[in-house]
Amino acid sequence: MPRMGFALGNTFDAAPPAVSLGVDPGLNRTGYAIIVRSARGPRLREGGLIRSTRGRTLAERVLEIGQGLREVVEEFQPDAMAIEQLFSHAQHVKTAILMAHARGAILLAAAQASVPIVHYSPTQVKRLLTGSGRASKEQVQGAVTRELGLTTVPEPNDVSDACAIALCHFHSRRLAAVAS
Amino acid sequence: MPRMGFALGNTFDAAPPAVSLGVDPGLNRTGYAIIVRSARGPRLREGGLIRSTRGRTLAERVLEIGQGLREVVEEFQPDAMAIEQLFSHAQHVKTAILMAHARGAILLAAAQASVPIVHYSPTQVKRLLTGSGRASKEQVQGAVTRELGLTTVPEPNDVSDACAIALCHFHSRRLAAVAS
Repeated sequence: MPRMGFALGNTFDAAPPAVSLGVDPGLNRTGYAIIVRSARGPRLREGGLIRSTRGRTLAERVLEIGQGLREVVEEFQPDAMAIEQLFSHAQHVKTAILMAHARGAILLAAAQASVPIVHYSPTQVKRLLTGSGRASKEQVQGAVTRELGLTTVPEPNDVSDACAIALCHFHSRRLAAVAS
Repeated sequence: MPRMGFALGNTFDAAPPAVSLGVDPGLNRTGYAIIVRSARGPRLREGGLIRSTRGRTLAERVLEIGQGLREVVEEFQPDAMAIEQLFSHAQHVKTAILMAHARGAILLAAAQASVPIVHYSPTQVKRLLTGSGRASKEQVQGAVTRELGLTTVPEPNDVSDACAIALCHFHSRRLAAVAS
């Protein structure tokens, strides 16, 4: 993928999004990443976790998550929020159902703030970042680290996953702009 | 259960909640019921459906659900929202995950409006309404119809289920008040 690698790092004649929010939803912790456009390519403005308090009710926890997302959106005013497509091949039903409560709250909070929401499949994320839809987690993390000009992989996993989906959105829009 | 039947319909020396909201969450349609206290016992003020539009994105749909719930809450100012406890014995994982998105949005919307949320298990609902935790759907619907002084079962099912959980909350609080 040399041509793509070149394009990713250097040419921005079309307009990729100025501020992209990537989110990796979870009830205990939701990773988020704010990726901004710069002359040197995409850069990580802020990555972090929105946590909810164990022991609280589910309603209190989704409120914490919704408020946390709202704060991120108000501070950074992203052009869009990127999130993984819904999957239904869950192995642990209870975990998947709890995650879906968090995901529903995140979608609602973003929609309430009028932030456009875009979905990408895990395969799309891998393909856009590494050139292969079957790339390993390590390959994806390596691409995230390189493309954002970081010296180490963002941690924890929730944050690097959020970076990956935000970058996927960044490149997807950039390539769409180039093609148009 | 003659004594309970008597108490339910006639004596209100303790204070049951003035306005109870019961909700039966679903992505396509969410049933709701507003039960109010009256001299003749609990009465159905309004029952209805909050629908979301098929074909729209999940984010748009949870926004429709959140807005619908907000309208009900703003109009009736319920003392609490009653909802069935989370279950994890889902047979259809995809349906359960979609329902959980709706449920997460409903919990967030209620929490944002500062409406206290109370959970009841299906067994508690059946026991409080019929005296048996293993009552049939028809027995529960019969109890709902009788106690609310209606001539027919509220329809569709989503609404009668919402009535049942609202009534469960009404009686649960009334009995707690009697006992205190």
